[in-house]
Amino acid sequence: MSQPPNDGKATQQQTKAHNDGLVLSIIYEAEEISRAAIARRTGLSRTSVGEAVAELLGRGLVEEVGRGRSRGGKPPILLRVNVDARHLIGIDLSGEELRGAVYDLRGEMRHTVSLPRDGRRGAQALELTYVLLDRLVTAAEAPLLGLGIGTPGLIDVQRGSQVHWAVNLDWLDIPLRDLLERRYRLPVHVVNDSQAAAMGEYFFGSGHHSGNLVVIKSEEGLGAGIVLEGRLLHGDHFGAGEIGHLVFGDDGRVCRCGNRGCLETIASGAAIVQRSRAAALADADSALRAAAMGDLALDMEAVRRAYVAGEEAVRGVVHDAARGLGLAIATLVGTLNARDIVISGPVTRLGDTFLDAIRQQVHARSLAPLARDTCVEFSSLASDITALGAAAMLLHQELGIWPLRLPRHAD
Amino acid sequence: MSQPPNDGKATQQQTKAHNDGLVLSIIYEAEEISRAAIARRTGLSRTSVGEAVAELLGRGLVEEVGRGRSRGGKPPILLRVNVDARHLIGIDLSGEELRGAVYDLRGEMRHTVSLPRDGRRGAQALELTYVLLDRLVTAAEAPLLGLGIGTPGLIDVQRGSQVHWAVNLDWLDIPLRDLLERRYRLPVHVVNDSQAAAMGEYFFGSGHHSGNLVVIKSEEGLGAGIVLEGRLLHGDHFGAGEIGHLVFGDDGRVCRCGNRGCLETIASGAAIVQRSRAAALADADSALRAAAMGDLALDMEAVRRAYVAGEEAVRGVVHDAARGLGLAIATLVGTLNARDIVISGPVTRLGDTFLDAIRQQVHARSLAPLARDTCVEFSSLASDITALGAAAMLLHQELGIWPLRLPRHAD
Repeated sequence: MSQPPNDGKATQQQTKAHNDGLVLSIIYEAEEISRAAIARRTGLSRTSVGEAVAELLGRGLVEEVGRGRSRGGKPPILLRVNVDARHLIGIDLSGEELRGAVYDLRGEMRHTVSLPRDGRRGAQALELTYVLLDRLVTAAEAPLLGLGIGTPGLIDVQRGSQVHWAVNLDWLDIPLRDLLERRYRLPVHVVNDSQAAAMGEYFFGSGHHSGNLVVIKSEEGLGAGIVLEGRLLHGDHFGAGEIGHLVFGDDGRVCRCGNRGCLETIASGAAIVQRSRAAALADADSALRAAAMGDLALDMEAVRRAYVAGEEAVRGVVHDAARGLGLAIATLVGTLNARDIVISGPVTRLGDTFLDAIRQQVHARSLAPLARDTCVEFSSLASDITALGAAAMLLHQELGIWPLRLPRHAD
Repeated sequence: MSQPPNDGKATQQQTKAHNDGLVLSIIYEAEEISRAAIARRTGLSRTSVGEAVAELLGRGLVEEVGRGRSRGGKPPILLRVNVDARHLIGIDLSGEELRGAVYDLRGEMRHTVSLPRDGRRGAQALELTYVLLDRLVTAAEAPLLGLGIGTPGLIDVQRGSQVHWAVNLDWLDIPLRDLLERRYRLPVHVVNDSQAAAMGEYFFGSGHHSGNLVVIKSEEGLGAGIVLEGRLLHGDHFGAGEIGHLVFGDDGRVCRCGNRGCLETIASGAAIVQRSRAAALADADSALRAAAMGDLALDMEAVRRAYVAGEEAVRGVVHDAARGLGLAIATLVGTLNARDIVISGPVTRLGDTFLDAIRQQVHARSLAPLARDTCVEFSSLASDITALGAAAMLLHQELGIWPLRLPRHAD
C-alpha cells in the first residue's frame, strides 16, 4: 500500500531540509560517493544535489576526499561524512549501572562512563544522571550534536518527552527533556530504552533490510522496540513494545506492575538471576548454592556457568525464560509478521542452547509459513546497544539521517 | 518521530497524482468545500488546487454545487464528490456464503449478492467467485472503478497478489488478481479478509482518529487487520494480524493449521457454534440439545439465545472465547499500544455481556496505564464490513483517497 497523503503543508524550507537529510543519508550509507552518483540514486536534479552538498560542506558535516574512478570524463570528486564534525552523547538509564558514551557520527565509541546506581531512585537517580552527563559532556572532544537519553518507562513524546512512568527509577511524570535542555543547552531526545535498543540495532546492527525489525531487550526489565516499514512505532500512549507485561499463564509471581505472571517476572535478565538464586538455595546439591548464600557473586555470568554445566535447578529457570520469550516472539510473529527478531541484553550470554530453545518454542507456536521465514537472533552489538541507539536518535532527529538500505553498487 | 526520507524519486507526475489524491481526500471528507478552503487546509497554492480540481471535474469525480457563505467577497463555489461518478465492487470470500456488493463512492450499498458456498473448495470455489462477480458486474449501474477482493489467506502483494495459502478455500498459490483482471478487464485489488475489515472500519466506521486501529474479525476463521499511523500493516510475509493462530495454553484442539490450541479453535464464530453444539450434546438438560442433534438450526443466533437464557454449557464455551479474545487483545495492547480495538463478525451478536467479559480480561492482563486508555468495541458496521473494506481499497489505490481525520471546521 502506498503512503497516505501527508497534510500537504510542505514548504520550500521543509523540502530543502528533506533533501539535505536525504543527500546526507546517501553519503552516510555509501561511505564515499560523487555528486553525480547521488543524483542518480535520489532522482534529485544535479542543481538540488549541488545545493545540498554545498550546505553540508559549509556545515563541515561532509568533506571532499579526492577523485574516484572516471566513467568517461574527468574523474569525479568523492564525498564522505566527516565523522568528527560533531559528536553524539547517548546514555542508558535502564540498568543497575547508569552508563553512557561519546560517539562519533559513525557510532564509534570515543569515551564511556558507567556509574553504579546502588539502588538510587527518584531525585537521587536524577542527580546521578546529571553526574553521568556532566562527565560525558566534559570528555567530549568535538562539538556535540545533542544528548540522546534511553530510559525505562513510558515516554510522552507529545508533552515534552515527559517520562510518564518508570517503575525501577521511581519516576512519575518527570519532564526529563526540559530539565536536561535547561541544564546543558543542547538538543535532547528522550526515548524508551527498548525503543532505543531497536534504533541502535536498526542503525548499526547487522543488515536488517526489510524495514521491519523487533528488538527484545532483557535486562532489569523486559521490553521490545519495534521498527515497522522503517519507522519506530510509538503507539497511542507511547507503550508500543511493552511486552514485558504480557501474561502467558494463569498464575505466577507478582510483578512490579501489580499484575501476576508477567513475562518480565520470568524472562528478564534480573528475573533469571533472582530465580536461579532461589532455585540454588532450595537445592542442597547446587554448585551455585554457596554463591547464592553469599549473594554477591551470583550474576548472569554465574548463572551461565551453572547452565552450561547442566545444573538442574538453573536449567529449569532458563528453560522457563526461553519458553516465555518464545511465546512472546510467537505473538509478535503472529501480530506483526516482522521477519527479524533480535534479542539483546545480558541474557544473550546464555548462548546457543538458550537461543535454540527460544526458536523451538517460536516454531511450535506460530503459523508454519510465518515461522519458516522468521529469523530469531542475538544482537551482534555489545551492551551499549541502548546508549548507541539513543545517540542514533540524534543522527535522525538533528541531521535527518536514516538507514536507506539501498542496494550497494546500484550505479 | 518524523518520517524517514523516501527514496527521493518523486517526479512531477507523482507530485501531481499526490496532489489530486490529497485534494480529492479533502473534498471527500469535507462533503462540501470551496477551492479557497482546500488551499488553506492543504497548504497547496491556489494554482495547484485549481489544477487538481479542474482535473477532478474533468473526470466527473467532483461536481460544483452552488455557492457557500461569503467571507467578505463573492460567495465561493462549493465542490463535492459525485458519488455516482464511479461505482465500486467489493466481495468477501471468507464466510460460509460468498458475498459482495456494488457500492457508490461513499460506500452506500446499491446492490448485493450472496451465494452459499456449500463446502465448495479449490477450483469450484473459484468458479463460484466468478459467478458472484459476474452478477455484480452485470448489476452495476455506473462505470466501475474496479474489483476489491477480501479473501482468507496470506496474500503475496509483491507477486501479483497471489493467494499464498487459504486453508478453508483450499487455495495454494492462486494468482487471483491476474485471473480476475484477465476475465473482467478491470483493476483488481486483493487483500486478506481481516485486513479488508480493518480498511472498512477505518474508512467507514465510527471515528478512529488516532490513525492506529486494530479490527478483529471472528467468523469462519479469526484474524486481525492492523492500521498503524494511518497505514495498513502487511508484514514481511503478508501475515500481519494472523492472531487466530496465537496459542495461550498448553493443549487444546488441533487447529486446521496443524498446531494445537490456536485462538481460532476457541474464539472464531465457527468454533463457538461447534463447541456449543458439542456441549449441548453432552448435556442432557440442554435446551439446545434438540437443535444440536438436528444439526440444522444450531447457528450463532441459537447460541446467542441459549447464552442469554443462561444455559450453563453454552456459557462455558462463550466464556472461553471471551477469555481467548481478551488475552489476544492484551497482547495487541502490549505490543502495538493501539487505542481502538474493534471486534467484528457474528460473535458481536453475543452482546454486551460477552463484550464486558472480553474487556475484563484485557484489563486484568495489561499494564494498567495502557489498559486504561484502551477502547474495545464491537464494530458499528454490518456483516458487509469486509466487502466494504475491499471496496475501500479501490478508493485508496485507484483514486488516492485516504481518511485524513482533519479537525472539522478548521477554517
